[in-house]
Amino acid sequence: MNRNETSAFSPELETYLQEAEPSQLKELSEWLRIPSVSTLPEHKEDVERAAAWLAQKMTSIGLDNVQIIPTGGHPIVYADWLHAGTGAPTVLVYGHYDVQPVDPLEMWTSPPFEPAVRGDDLFARGASDDKGQLLAHVAAVEALLATSGNLPVNVKFLVEGEEEVGSGALTAFVPAETGKLAADVCVISDTHILSPEQPLIIYGLRGVWAGEVTVRGPSQDLHSGMFGGAVHNPNQAMCALLARLHDDAGRVAVPGFYDDVQSLSSQEREALAQVPYGDEQLLRESGAPAVWGEQGYTVTERIGARPTLEINGMWGGFVGEGFKTVIPAEAHAKVSCRLVPEQPSSAIGPMIERYLQQIAPDTVEVEVRTLQHAPATVVPLDVPEMQAGARAYARIFGVNPVFSREGGSIPIATIVQESLNVPILFMGFGLPDDNLHAPNEKLHLPNFYRGIRVGIALMEELVSS
Amino acid sequence: MNRNETSAFSPELETYLQEAEPSQLKELSEWLRIPSVSTLPEHKEDVERAAAWLAQKMTSIGLDNVQIIPTGGHPIVYADWLHAGTGAPTVLVYGHYDVQPVDPLEMWTSPPFEPAVRGDDLFARGASDDKGQLLAHVAAVEALLATSGNLPVNVKFLVEGEEEVGSGALTAFVPAETGKLAADVCVISDTHILSPEQPLIIYGLRGVWAGEVTVRGPSQDLHSGMFGGAVHNPNQAMCALLARLHDDAGRVAVPGFYDDVQSLSSQEREALAQVPYGDEQLLRESGAPAVWGEQGYTVTERIGARPTLEINGMWGGFVGEGFKTVIPAEAHAKVSCRLVPEQPSSAIGPMIERYLQQIAPDTVEVEVRTLQHAPATVVPLDVPEMQAGARAYARIFGVNPVFSREGGSIPIATIVQESLNVPILFMGFGLPDDNLHAPNEKLHLPNFYRGIRVGIALMEELVSS
Repeated sequence: MNRNETSAFSPELETYLQEAEPSQLKELSEWLRIPSVSTLPEHKEDVERAAAWLAQKMTSIGLDNVQIIPTGGHPIVYADWLHAGTGAPTVLVYGHYDVQPVDPLEMWTSPPFEPAVRGDDLFARGASDDKGQLLAHVAAVEALLATSGNLPVNVKFLVEGEEEVGSGALTAFVPAETGKLAADVCVISDTHILSPEQPLIIYGLRGVWAGEVTVRGPSQDLHSGMFGGAVHNPNQAMCALLARLHDDAGRVAVPGFYDDVQSLSSQEREALAQVPYGDEQLLRESGAPAVWGEQGYTVTERIGARPTLEINGMWGGFVGEGFKTVIPAEAHAKVSCRLVPEQPSSAIGPMIERYLQQIAPDTVEVEVRTLQHAPATVVPLDVPEMQAGARAYARIFGVNPVFSREGGSIPIATIVQESLNVPILFMGFGLPDDNLHAPNEKLHLPNFYRGIRVGIALMEELVSS
Repeated sequence: MNRNETSAFSPELETYLQEAEPSQLKELSEWLRIPSVSTLPEHKEDVERAAAWLAQKMTSIGLDNVQIIPTGGHPIVYADWLHAGTGAPTVLVYGHYDVQPVDPLEMWTSPPFEPAVRGDDLFARGASDDKGQLLAHVAAVEALLATSGNLPVNVKFLVEGEEEVGSGALTAFVPAETGKLAADVCVISDTHILSPEQPLIIYGLRGVWAGEVTVRGPSQDLHSGMFGGAVHNPNQAMCALLARLHDDAGRVAVPGFYDDVQSLSSQEREALAQVPYGDEQLLRESGAPAVWGEQGYTVTERIGARPTLEINGMWGGFVGEGFKTVIPAEAHAKVSCRLVPEQPSSAIGPMIERYLQQIAPDTVEVEVRTLQHAPATVVPLDVPEMQAGARAYARIFGVNPVFSREGGSIPIATIVQESLNVPILFMGFGLPDDNLHAPNEKLHLPNFYRGIRVGIALMEELVSS
């Protein structure tokens, strides 16, 4: 394969990188076979095995101080290489080795934990989010140490096993270990670029609030033939309540939700209009019948720069084959919000609960429980590390990256940014259609190999920044 | 125990009945231990075991022509005793040996298939619906045959294993076997009375329509951070659609739904007002925070005489522990309607689909699939068999039964009534708080024993009617 149009590196390193691809793929596949689903208690040992696999890999390539740090939840993996000398910057690489659940399993073309290459893509849960993207950085360090015995920068790896469940342990660890983690910049490759040929640096990620709504009616499940029509069905009440979380214009209808949201400046709207993404690509990637959303905004603005509210899950009553004429005692929903800067993430849960309780009839009771919340992250565009990142992308892809605010959330990024006082470089190698959190998650392999090269180029560019 | 205030039977029969109670309870418990859940394929063999148990019991007490009749689904059990002589009426006793699923299992105080007596109640899935109520009739026949070797009437038992899944096999069997099943009256004990001391004859049952609503959006599950706010979430669309199935006055909002519904006559409203049931009892039995329903009607009218629509189940997206920021490809709901006479049950599914498709935005697709439908049943109050039933209740309970229309549906009743041209006697022994289709289903044991006596009294009264 010859995907590096520009010869970015020394002939020796180039040769190494081309020859290493099969073993890089083999190792990633090996790691992906470990079903490290952090949300499911039955996978606890698998999560630990995935941590151990990574620690073993880090040790084998010559990293120092490799540690599997136990926590109340899943372990944190730490490793460093600090021999670049005084004056050389220190890069903190963050990633996560846990993965999302796989349901609905029947929609996977190949089993989620049996990595399968089809065309240029590697299909497996965690291929893109985030094992593949993290391993690219490990492989970048490996390549330099193997060919030169040296790195141009000091490197620290901080890898958690709880990203998909709220980063509980790391949220406490980072502020408590600011000495150990001290760095000049933090690199996070847990995002996507625009297309296989067009890199993207994300300078803003939305915050998140996630919680669970419970509607309670009768004290136990009832026979709908004997009580239907005279008792308010919690499923029905839940639908009526959730239907009122948005208005007809696609706006979130919770009072106060937009109070702290700043209007988009015309400058920012112009910048976002430059992002080569629109209705057509959205429809192609999602397979949705039509575009939807808050009136008065483009899809790029809706996804990247406006707050949203989603019903990620709901359930109540009988959900098996056939039917059961029941009125359930309770109905449930998982709701999450994506938040823009200035929105206080801690206020969202109480705000939603207040609203739902206010509009709920006295025939049911409503409760909202917060599962996680974190504010949005924004990185200034003019810091030198950001420019170094842009040059690294340009060297490998042959085109300059575009800059964008994105819809996703990486709550731990805000904590790292604030605790360690470092800029965050969100430099991903994933693609928008990688099916994160969905069946048939994949990693585009040419971008995996490019990601390794970008990792190397970034270390070099940070020295000259 | 001495629950029969009036001595209804000969001293010999009285003695037999009092002595037989422990073995009657033991046998019912034995039958209840077989988890004959007809909706779940993994219980197919249990359903067959429950049929075999009943057939064995019928043979042992001296019934003739005991047959386990295979069907495309679960078997039908038939038995008869036809030696009462010409001129004696023939009674067809209908019942079912299949039971509802048990979820949510964790809400059961004792395991659903380990019958447990607490106080005067026997707790087990199927205790009231319908094994206990059916076995009362078998025990009634057993008592007469054991003490006198004779019955005053001819008896046929017709027992199915698919009542909880739509009576598919029996729906075809009854019209095809009108000779075999020919009778003068059909008795169904699959209903409840008002209280342990107040019998009730139901002269009308509502019809039913049950179906599944599917809302489809994107072609697969999406990451809500990457697509949220720009793609219509099928969960959200489902809630908005289901919320519009009722209006603010608690009426079903589907156009045409009430077109064939007759107004309640003042005479009927007066009769229903006599039923000693109201808001207070409804709240006590259901544990609901408040009464709900169609404005302008009492709870007795809402449950018994008005059509209703219920969301029996709904599900979509992630429903596990923690959270997953997903936009699901599909959302689902189980919906059912209770129908009053004159409402054409076959029209309901298309009517709901038409309405939902009309109000659905073009951002999603909606489909409604019918699972089952059957019209309502009404029995004239003035037929002699109805009066015989009333006398039988009065002899055993010491008070006259009240007559009521009820909310539930027994679709096969309509088919029996029409195919065999017989009146249906809905004479139950269950109670409104028996937790049918819910955790902690129970049978009030004094009523089980009274039910056996009512079964005997009914055979005697039918001769003199």
